[in-house]
Amino acid sequence: MAKQKKQPRPKAQAPKGFRDYFGAEVDERKIMLDQIAAVYHRYGFDALESSAVETVEALGKFLPDVDRPNEGVFAWQEDSEGDKPGDWLALRYDLTAPLARVYAQYRNDLPMPYRRYAMGPVWRNEKPGPGRFRQFYQCDADTVGSGSMAADAEICAMLADTLETVGIPRGDYIVRVNNRKVLNGVLEVMGLDEGATRDAVLRTIDKFDKVGEAGVRQLLGKGRLDASGAYIDGVGLSDAQAEPVIAFLTSKGEGAQQTLANLRAAVGDSQVGAEGVQELETIADLLAAQGYGPDRIEVDPSVVRGLGYYTGPVFEAELTFEILDEKGRPRQFGSVAGGGRYDDLVKRFTGQAVPATGVSIGVDRLLAALRAKGRVGGAANGPVVVTVMDRDRLADYQAMVGELRAAGIRAEVYLGNPKNFGNQLKYADKRNAPVAVIEGGDEKDRGVIQIKDLVLGAKIAESATLEEWKARPSQFECARGDLVREVQKILEAGNAPQG
Amino acid sequence: MAKQKKQPRPKAQAPKGFRDYFGAEVDERKIMLDQIAAVYHRYGFDALESSAVETVEALGKFLPDVDRPNEGVFAWQEDSEGDKPGDWLALRYDLTAPLARVYAQYRNDLPMPYRRYAMGPVWRNEKPGPGRFRQFYQCDADTVGSGSMAADAEICAMLADTLETVGIPRGDYIVRVNNRKVLNGVLEVMGLDEGATRDAVLRTIDKFDKVGEAGVRQLLGKGRLDASGAYIDGVGLSDAQAEPVIAFLTSKGEGAQQTLANLRAAVGDSQVGAEGVQELETIADLLAAQGYGPDRIEVDPSVVRGLGYYTGPVFEAELTFEILDEKGRPRQFGSVAGGGRYDDLVKRFTGQAVPATGVSIGVDRLLAALRAKGRVGGAANGPVVVTVMDRDRLADYQAMVGELRAAGIRAEVYLGNPKNFGNQLKYADKRNAPVAVIEGGDEKDRGVIQIKDLVLGAKIAESATLEEWKARPSQFECARGDLVREVQKILEAGNAPQG
Repeated sequence: MAKQKKQPRPKAQAPKGFRDYFGAEVDERKIMLDQIAAVYHRYGFDALESSAVETVEALGKFLPDVDRPNEGVFAWQEDSEGDKPGDWLALRYDLTAPLARVYAQYRNDLPMPYRRYAMGPVWRNEKPGPGRFRQFYQCDADTVGSGSMAADAEICAMLADTLETVGIPRGDYIVRVNNRKVLNGVLEVMGLDEGATRDAVLRTIDKFDKVGEAGVRQLLGKGRLDASGAYIDGVGLSDAQAEPVIAFLTSKGEGAQQTLANLRAAVGDSQVGAEGVQELETIADLLAAQGYGPDRIEVDPSVVRGLGYYTGPVFEAELTFEILDEKGRPRQFGSVAGGGRYDDLVKRFTGQAVPATGVSIGVDRLLAALRAKGRVGGAANGPVVVTVMDRDRLADYQAMVGELRAAGIRAEVYLGNPKNFGNQLKYADKRNAPVAVIEGGDEKDRGVIQIKDLVLGAKIAESATLEEWKARPSQFECARGDLVREVQKILEAGNAPQG
Repeated sequence: MAKQKKQPRPKAQAPKGFRDYFGAEVDERKIMLDQIAAVYHRYGFDALESSAVETVEALGKFLPDVDRPNEGVFAWQEDSEGDKPGDWLALRYDLTAPLARVYAQYRNDLPMPYRRYAMGPVWRNEKPGPGRFRQFYQCDADTVGSGSMAADAEICAMLADTLETVGIPRGDYIVRVNNRKVLNGVLEVMGLDEGATRDAVLRTIDKFDKVGEAGVRQLLGKGRLDASGAYIDGVGLSDAQAEPVIAFLTSKGEGAQQTLANLRAAVGDSQVGAEGVQELETIADLLAAQGYGPDRIEVDPSVVRGLGYYTGPVFEAELTFEILDEKGRPRQFGSVAGGGRYDDLVKRFTGQAVPATGVSIGVDRLLAALRAKGRVGGAANGPVVVTVMDRDRLADYQAMVGELRAAGIRAEVYLGNPKNFGNQLKYADKRNAPVAVIEGGDEKDRGVIQIKDLVLGAKIAESATLEEWKARPSQFECARGDLVREVQKILEAGNAPQG
């Protein structure tokens, strides 16, 4: 071999803010995404898997005259071709910007309206933190090309169906619907069509969930001492000036009709406000006609949604059950999905406004919720491990796993160094194996095998009485020909509901 | 709103060499990958989804002293932190390099041996061409930490099972196994342990498939006129010098035993060669004992596999049926998967050699093969489209799709502008809808609906006789209450095998 310069060893480490997913973590997410996809598909949404890489130009949000436009995204420049500088490319930071690009690119071939769903990783060049990663999954459904409120209502209904399908029971979630135009109407009434005060008011409204009516009053006025003791400056409105915001935020009544009436009062004679209330009413009526009552979907004026691009209805799915936070205090699980209508994204490309509405599910948060509810995980999923007592008889052991697999049972032969039998059992343990199979020379001669029930074994080791141990030993001998049947028995017993 | 500088519209275009996948393309790949994952899982392999982004250092193959080490990969530099220059990050170019990193990083927690499978996109910064993309799927299974030939045999058996599971019948594929050590033995016998001549000989051997024995003889000697009329320079060996290579390449005999005997002769007294033949024999014996005969897996000395990192057994799955190439000529479909043993990848990180073996399936090629065999695609998968005759009765139409979905039928309401009914039917056509449902005011009053069988309609439009048209009209009226039952009937008829 040619001589090589000695180099330091590379670090075996995923980049900061990136992580790997192993075994059950991958399986559980996949099961959930498959369930979601099935609901979306039944609603007529088509799968779309767009390129993970986009031109920075198409992604938008970035200024083309900036030297290195990678603020918030992972971006790099292609090699130049002759005099032409290379394009800037970037990893997608969400699934909506690529949808706008795809729709603009293929608009002549796509059905109109175009319902599509997408699931996959997105990347953000942000400072990583605990539980904050720079690559994570999103799962979106959008309808492009329909201005009908029926499209928004459909997304809300689908979201409710989806949550129930993945295992969030009715009563443990609520889909809340609002409309940006209503809020715009309120701001118009207040004379806040644009500017810094308007933005400050919007930010304050977004805090309603946390600080309540009194808190919002303070924040709209002089300011407020927050929980940490810091003083938060207020927007500086007088009580009278702040009143329409308060009326808006507290307009939720008994049932949609009452709420809508309150909202209608709050927007006064603002035309855009009245339009927003009308749209909300249409959505509420459509959902009511389909049987989606306020136990599943409700009009809630406190839903704002941060994203600047929403132009009409906005919605949010919240899980209403409590979990314990990192300090052991109970708190509501909170939002797992959100979306709304954004009518301007395609226009960037084509100059033509295309109405669109959609929802994005926070995959990791929903999965965490399902774990908290015990809906995923915990299933012993390891393979049956056939141990190697005699390394010259690997073919015999392979035959056993062959029979087990043919019966649909996950099984493997131990392929490490078989010398130390203890290591083989430790391996089976690490693999979460429900069963280990043993066939030494003596067993072979007698036509039998030893079967070790590892789940039962673990239970016995933990807590069984001597009587239980005797009544059902965790290791037993059976005829070689009964391998599959005996293993199946153990697996079935293990899967039975546990007293 | 603040005034904005007028900017040119961004181009709606995926970056060069990247593409998007729509609807059935996504579904078909997913079905295939799910089938593959099920086989891998049954064999005891665990899913691993590693980060798409790696440090360039961990990916390896790149020199840390190169200013911009993005040859072949998409790479970018992180922002510097103080004086410390940012790390170079890159998109993974395969799934094996990340596996080596993951194994080195988590080796104390992972079972040993570690069987894992992975499926997902990889990225190559190469010049795109027809059918050559810069993002594509790989699907790998590897066993890390076992030096046993049983691990290699298991991968070969699993590969055969996988191909049959996804729809390649026995007889239409062959898994061929060879061993790098045998080839190394042959080269040792020839005195070609390293150097340019050795590399030239290896490249020539790789062409055996295409040019045959006579071609290889010429290429090892003076050279050869290729099909295009260009003269390809030869390696320059004499006939006698070339003989061991020829003996090696033509050593395939009737059955594994004959082939192994020929190989044993070809490696002469080379120790590494003898070791390779011994390993091949162990694999052949294990596979034979499990019933994997030469109709599925065979020892074939002509398998070389390009990758430099293989150190022992190498294998390849080839599809043996013919398809027509772009010029309409029949040719063998060729390779869809390959792999082998690579014992040095983890060592880069830990300094400790860790034996490993694995296989990678070419997802797009296998999918293309299944399409060529008619195993995927073609299924009418569109939703039932409920048309909108009266825009004030959207709730009625939503109720219909609600009933259909509850019965597991994919269905949607037309959400475009309902004014032009022709557009609604065109839309249904574009959606591949099997059925359209129509309920105008008149139908509503009479408690009926119109059902249009669009599949039958298309057939009739194409070729039906007047009698057929009369016998089974493609549009009929039924009671509103029979919606689900009548649609189901049509879907079942459509799915019946077609005479």
